[in-house]
Amino acid sequence: MLRAAIIGAAGYTGSELVRLIHRHPELSLAVVAARDNAGKRLEQVVPSTRGVKGIGELMLEPFDPEQANALAKRVDVAFLGLPHAASAKAGKALYDAGVRVVDLSADFRLKSREAYEKTYGPHPAPELFEVAIYGMPELHREELKGARLIAAPGCYPTSCILPLAPLLRAGLIAKDGIIIDSKSGVSGAGRSPGPAYHLPEAAEGIRPYKVAGAHRHTVEIEQELSLAAGETLNVVFTPQLAPMTRGILSIAYARLLPGKTEDDCRAAARELYREGLVTVLDQGVLPDTLWVRGSARAHVGYAVDTRVSTVLAMGAIDNLAKGASAQAIQALNVAMGWPDALGLPEVAMFP
Amino acid sequence: MLRAAIIGAAGYTGSELVRLIHRHPELSLAVVAARDNAGKRLEQVVPSTRGVKGIGELMLEPFDPEQANALAKRVDVAFLGLPHAASAKAGKALYDAGVRVVDLSADFRLKSREAYEKTYGPHPAPELFEVAIYGMPELHREELKGARLIAAPGCYPTSCILPLAPLLRAGLIAKDGIIIDSKSGVSGAGRSPGPAYHLPEAAEGIRPYKVAGAHRHTVEIEQELSLAAGETLNVVFTPQLAPMTRGILSIAYARLLPGKTEDDCRAAARELYREGLVTVLDQGVLPDTLWVRGSARAHVGYAVDTRVSTVLAMGAIDNLAKGASAQAIQALNVAMGWPDALGLPEVAMFP
Amino acid sequence: MLRAAIIGAAGYTGSELVRLIHRHPELSLAVVAARDNAGKRLEQVVPSTRGVKGIGELMLEPFDPEQANALAKRVDVAFLGLPHAASAKAGKALYDAGVRVVDLSADFRLKSREAYEKTYGPHPAPELFEVAIYGMPELHREELKGARLIAAPGCYPTSCILPLAPLLRAGLIAKDGIIIDSKSGVSGAGRSPGPAYHLPEAAEGIRPYKVAGAHRHTVEIEQELSLAAGETLNVVFTPQLAPMTRGILSIAYARLLPGKTEDDCRAAARELYREGLVTVLDQGVLPDTLWVRGSARAHVGYAVDTRVSTVLAMGAIDNLAKGASAQAIQALNVAMGWPDALGLPEVAMFP
Amino acid sequence: MLRAAIIGAAGYTGSELVRLIHRHPELSLAVVAARDNAGKRLEQVVPSTRGVKGIGELMLEPFDPEQANALAKRVDVAFLGLPHAASAKAGKALYDAGVRVVDLSADFRLKSREAYEKTYGPHPAPELFEVAIYGMPELHREELKGARLIAAPGCYPTSCILPLAPLLRAGLIAKDGIIIDSKSGVSGAGRSPGPAYHLPEAAEGIRPYKVAGAHRHTVEIEQELSLAAGETLNVVFTPQLAPMTRGILSIAYARLLPGKTEDDCRAAARELYREGLVTVLDQGVLPDTLWVRGSARAHVGYAVDTRVSTVLAMGAIDNLAKGASAQAIQALNVAMGWPDALGLPEVAMFP
Repeated sequence: MLRAAIIGAAGYTGSELVRLIHRHPELSLAVVAARDNAGKRLEQVVPSTRGVKGIGELMLEPFDPEQANALAKRVDVAFLGLPHAASAKAGKALYDAGVRVVDLSADFRLKSREAYEKTYGPHPAPELFEVAIYGMPELHREELKGARLIAAPGCYPTSCILPLAPLLRAGLIAKDGIIIDSKSGVSGAGRSPGPAYHLPEAAEGIRPYKVAGAHRHTVEIEQELSLAAGETLNVVFTPQLAPMTRGILSIAYARLLPGKTEDDCRAAARELYREGLVTVLDQGVLPDTLWVRGSARAHVGYAVDTRVSTVLAMGAIDNLAKGASAQAIQALNVAMGWPDALGLPEVAMFP
Repeated sequence: MLRAAIIGAAGYTGSELVRLIHRHPELSLAVVAARDNAGKRLEQVVPSTRGVKGIGELMLEPFDPEQANALAKRVDVAFLGLPHAASAKAGKALYDAGVRVVDLSADFRLKSREAYEKTYGPHPAPELFEVAIYGMPELHREELKGARLIAAPGCYPTSCILPLAPLLRAGLIAKDGIIIDSKSGVSGAGRSPGPAYHLPEAAEGIRPYKVAGAHRHTVEIEQELSLAAGETLNVVFTPQLAPMTRGILSIAYARLLPGKTEDDCRAAARELYREGLVTVLDQGVLPDTLWVRGSARAHVGYAVDTRVSTVLAMGAIDNLAKGASAQAIQALNVAMGWPDALGLPEVAMFP
Repeated sequence: MLRAAIIGAAGYTGSELVRLIHRHPELSLAVVAARDNAGKRLEQVVPSTRGVKGIGELMLEPFDPEQANALAKRVDVAFLGLPHAASAKAGKALYDAGVRVVDLSADFRLKSREAYEKTYGPHPAPELFEVAIYGMPELHREELKGARLIAAPGCYPTSCILPLAPLLRAGLIAKDGIIIDSKSGVSGAGRSPGPAYHLPEAAEGIRPYKVAGAHRHTVEIEQELSLAAGETLNVVFTPQLAPMTRGILSIAYARLLPGKTEDDCRAAARELYREGLVTVLDQGVLPDTLWVRGSARAHVGYAVDTRVSTVLAMGAIDNLAKGASAQAIQALNVAMGWPDALGLPEVAMFP
Repeated sequence: MLRAAIIGAAGYTGSELVRLIHRHPELSLAVVAARDNAGKRLEQVVPSTRGVKGIGELMLEPFDPEQANALAKRVDVAFLGLPHAASAKAGKALYDAGVRVVDLSADFRLKSREAYEKTYGPHPAPELFEVAIYGMPELHREELKGARLIAAPGCYPTSCILPLAPLLRAGLIAKDGIIIDSKSGVSGAGRSPGPAYHLPEAAEGIRPYKVAGAHRHTVEIEQELSLAAGETLNVVFTPQLAPMTRGILSIAYARLLPGKTEDDCRAAARELYREGLVTVLDQGVLPDTLWVRGSARAHVGYAVDTRVSTVLAMGAIDNLAKGASAQAIQALNVAMGWPDALGLPEVAMFP
């Protein structure tokens, strides 16, 4: 049994970690930390824990990276849900103190320091770029075994890398001209209120934002797709806010190479996803974010418009589960040598 | 480990049972049955199970009460999610065949055959009225121990009985003049589409239906509140459809008796709910259905309008969880001598 | 043709006024003012006006009550959508400068200065208490004729006064023990983001707030119901936030007096609402907020639980239309001697 | 003043026509017809009209094309909202009887009988293919003047033709490789309930359907875009159901030709849309379906991903307004020589 800390427990990835860790047979929630809410009981901040014994009454602590050694005596693994840069600083301190770290920020996802600093600014611990493992077990299983610093993948990236990677690896699609149209539930924007997330202005509208390369996840997507393709590639990535709480649906459009078929796409995905938590949908079945809500699984599906030789590679995930906290735990499971699904919900909450 | 059957697995209480049983350490899902979808794989009908090993590929069977003895060889407990009368018929056959039965219909909830037949029509197995136990562990714990025929309570009744019962038992409120104003998510209406549940006409409206005693749950509510009060009482019960999927918020209004206080209400509830899955909210905290979504717990809270000596006894539940499938399993847990929460989610899905 | 100003055009009642005034045959939008957004084009702040000629390009102005005389040369009527106290100050200045004023804040709704100050704090222009007319034409038609200072009623009060007033006026119900259970869409909370209105925490939950007399609208409701009853009365008022953008459904519970019937209730309402914008629903028809979305009309309906002689007096409105901006214009219409519905939408947006 | 009939008044385009015609200064609603609901008052079927004098009490009539001559004595223009083939049959009968016809079905939209019959089956009145005018005033203004048979455009086509047509006409983008990713509110699926539109399964999910050329609107889109391009082209069209009632957001992806810029795109659109009801959004402003809800206007906007020379041509409409009933009236307005916006809402309902 590992003792776990959640640093940044007041946010949505934090509250999802609480939900998941509470039912994990090998993890116990030992420490919850939150900057602004320190001193409150967890149930005052994360109302889903009200009255749950051993959880709701946990006291939120402040966390200072300088106290990493003290924390290391109380926990074996720390999940970080902090803003970027802050997360790297905390991660380095805890890692150095011997705590296994699963970071849910973007700080350890990129392999290129240059790309990171161009996108996010100075990195407080660049020496860890080589240590951190990108925590997507379906694509990085071997590297994850025994990993002590895991970078949990971003939500948008998870939703489009999973359907595209098998096609790129198997050489079924052109490497240029990939277009990714993604729609996310509002929880992906985090817990801080703002005009764009105010229910009256978000509930009955759908809208793009940070298009044409402006969204930071573009770099992460391109890194992993380039890896799958074996060469550097660029994509068009269009994030959109959809009027719902959880879920991402990504549809990637790519040119199918001559002689390749829709069945080839499914076969490549089935082969790649024999292990892990990805369901490849049958021919004719199209994904729906509702089908994966609350679940650690991703759904991927394929369709081909034969008139123009274009493949639709579709992915649906719960942005807070497979797109964040559940995948973080899945990656830890693999790092520990446990089954991917250990302690994780695989049956979605339907409806 | 008990082998479980779900008879009526294609409905929403059925899909919720699948979700819950899949993670229950002492239950394994052995049989799924559904009248109209027999012959399909479960994942074709309950899409939340797509790709989940051992679950999604289960084949939906037809179920005929005449084959109860055959089924009895394959399962130890059967959860029934059938229309009324059909449920009683199936329940009797399985009960007689030695299968432990948890019925989620209304067929075994009422103690009075007369009340049942006035409300629902002829009952196919009235001899079981005395055997069946109302499956609300917080109020019927002793009777439930060892129970072999459990009537899982209705969703609306659960949401209002839980906040009111402690006040009636403790003699804090008048027994007449109780008004219950309840709002339910649309999943409470079941999985069959209809104009009232068609998203464009349900998504941005709230509306009452079957008011002024017309809703069948009125009888069930009055039965249990009368039991708590020690005398027969009537209530005004107003069900309303709210534009959301899951959740019931009930606010019951009652006259506080002279000398009694809001604190007395909370104290009575805390005393009654020392065991079980009910959280009594602190003074000043008001319930929210989002806080219990997906959870087996109910939240109850109290406020008093001292100007007119009226208490607001408030309850929030997930209608499919504590209001149906999770409470059904909780009741089975108690019947088996297991902890109430065994295998059940207590931390809600937030957000 | 009256030239109109909207002071506070950036809020939701402001944007609704823009929508309504734009199609009103006797009003032209001459001035839009907004404190924080002064200097921007209206379409930058109220995106529903983007590209609408003569509207979208209007420049938002600052408004200082000291410049009331200057404004008086440019407009004939001013609609105020400001925070309380600020609204009274602006209203007095404009009224004194000869501008007809329709105030959408609570500043001129109450008849009792004492009640106002207890609820809201010091009033900057108490001498206008006697001048202001409560702008609900169905109940104050005669006083409104020619009115130069109109207090547009609150949203919750509109939704429950309309169904209850006829019953109190006609002496059909007991004057004590009235309970009002109201559910409002989130736009009622205004345009400022906050945790309670953040889509992920508001979209799938329903919850009470400011219960047991704590909501300021209680005073306004009691004032008007006392007037209808001919004596001072108190009510229990329970506001709730429902997961939708627009609409209020109020269900008021009252004891039906001996010998009175549901038909009497409808007849009393039909008699009172022969003029105005209230639809009295037929027997058996229950209100739905969707049916009045975007409309200037209110729907009221009645049901009686004869077992306990309790009447349900139900009202549904669009909180921003009949509950705010449309009723403000209706009141102005009456003040000007125009038909109630002049320039107002009566057919709701369905769906 | 033209007397108008709505044939098929019980559906959503019908109820939207009622809303719009009620406020149109040159149209009066004379006849409402509906097959299944004939004999009921309009307000019993379209609840948004409850209590609206002159509208709600209109009696729904049956309509038989054989009685077209009788109807022709009572109305000057008929709006048809019938299933395809039935609409053509009714349209021909009314047209022959001298009634001006605005058909909201797909029956008169296509120019090629072959394309129609391949997509929809046999056409009952192919001789009218040449007479009917595609009712998008921004692209077919001259042909519409005096038109007596108008085919109101489809909702998806409107949302993507409007942003793409100026680019194709001006030669700014490649004519092959166009990808259109569209998300529609559920009202686009009509008023008949079904599993896919059942609130619990539609409210928190987003999903594609009829992808890869399977949706019938593909043909209509390709017809109009080919016309704009001056040559036959094919597109990838991906319709998706989004969890909201109204609105379509379409994002079309196309290769920008060398030397062309984002500004060129906006300039081309501004030039083409100097007349009509299309707002071209400023640089950096991205469309939102909420901004056009209930409005007759469309919003189009442009962004270019310069790294890969791809333009995002974005369109947002209200599928029932600019995407159906409002555009139908706009086309009639143009046919009659009236201003496009006559009687139509241009300011959206916000929020």
